Amino acid sequence: MKFCSECGSNALAQRVPEGDTVLRTVCGDCGTIHYSNPRVVVGTIPVWQDKILLCKRAIEPRYGLWTLPAGFLENAETVEQGAMRETLEEANARVNLGELYMMISLIHVHQVYMIYRAELADLDFGPGTESLEVRLFDEREIPWESIAFRTISRTLRCWFLDRKLGSFRFRSSAIDRPRRRI
Amino acid sequence: MKFCSECGSNALAQRVPEGDTVLRTVCGDCGTIHYSNPRVVVGTIPVWQDKILLCKRAIEPRYGLWTLPAGFLENAETVEQGAMRETLEEANARVNLGELYMMISLIHVHQVYMIYRAELADLDFGPGTESLEVRLFDEREIPWESIAFRTISRTLRCWFLDRKLGSFRFRSSAIDRPRRRI
Repeated sequence: MKFCSECGSNALAQRVPEGDTVLRTVCGDCGTIHYSNPRVVVGTIPVWQDKILLCKRAIEPRYGLWTLPAGFLENAETVEQGAMRETLEEANARVNLGELYMMISLIHVHQVYMIYRAELADLDFGPGTESLEVRLFDEREIPWESIAFRTISRTLRCWFLDRKLGSFRFRSSAIDRPRRRI
Repeated sequence: MKFCSECGSNALAQRVPEGDTVLRTVCGDCGTIHYSNPRVVVGTIPVWQDKILLCKRAIEPRYGLWTLPAGFLENAETVEQGAMRETLEEANARVNLGELYMMISLIHVHQVYMIYRAELADLDFGPGTESLEVRLFDEREIPWESIAFRTISRTLRCWFLDRKLGSFRFRSSAIDRPRRRI
C-alpha cells in the first residue's frame, strides 16, 4: 500500500493505533486505519477409488509442479462452495464434498489453508485455465519431488496415513517459515 | 476503496479481469487489481464446570449485548493462537484450547467464524477494554434475548445440545442474510 485508499494521500505510516496492540498502516491525513488480515485458501482432495486427482500448475508460483485443486475463498460463498468451485475451475471436476480434513495456518504468508475430503462424481475432468494437466495418481505414483507446496505434501502424507489406519480425522497445524530451497 | 492504493488514482472501476470470473475493483490508470476476500473471526467457548463464560460488549456493533470472546485473526498468528489471544484480550482469561467446534460462513459480511471448545485454566478473568462485564452462565441463565450475534446463539445452542447428547462434533454451516430486526 503506497496511497491511502480513502483519501489518496501518500502520508502513510506504520504505527499501533490507540487501543490496539498491532502495527497498522495508518493515514496521516485522514486517519483511516488500513487493516490487513489472513486470507483463506480452500480446496479438496478429490478421490476416485484408490487414486487422488492432482493438477499440474500452469501459473506462477510453482509453474509445472503438482498440487491439489485449491485457491482463495471469495466474498460471496461459503467455505464449502469455495472448495468445490476451485475444484471445478482448476480440474473441471465435480465432487461430492466430504468432511473438512486439513487446516494449516501459513503464518509467513498470511493464509489459512482448509482442505476437504471429496469423492469425484465422475471421470469427466481435465485441465482448467490454471492447470497444464490433471490426472489421477495412486500412492506409489505421487510425484513427491514435484509437489508445489508444503501444505499439499503434508495433506497428502496425512491422507495416505489415515487411509492405512482406516480412520480420517481432522488435523490442524502450522507452517511458519518457507522451506529452504537448495 | 476510493483511490488506488498503488498509484493514488481515483479512476477505479468494477470489472471482471481477463481470465477471472468475479467483479474486482481495477485501477484504470495503473491496472492494479484490488482483491477483497473474507476475513476470519476466531474465538472460544470458555467453560468452567457446567458454565460458559460470556462477555458483554463495550463496543459497537451490539454494544451492551453478550458474546463469546472472538475477533479477527491477525496476520502473524495461527488460528489457534488467535482464538486464545481474543479470549485473553476480551475476558482476561487463559484457556486450555480444545477442538475446533463451529465454523460458520457469514456470506453477507464476508467472514468465516471459527470457534473452539476451551476450558478456563482458572477463575482469574475479568473485562478487557472491549467488554463491560464478563461472567459465567449456566444453561438456564444464558441471556438468549441479549446475545449479540446469530453466530453466537447458534454456537451456544449447538454446544448445549451436544453436551446433552454426550458428544461434541465439529459443525459447519452458513448464514447468508442478516436477521430482520422488528
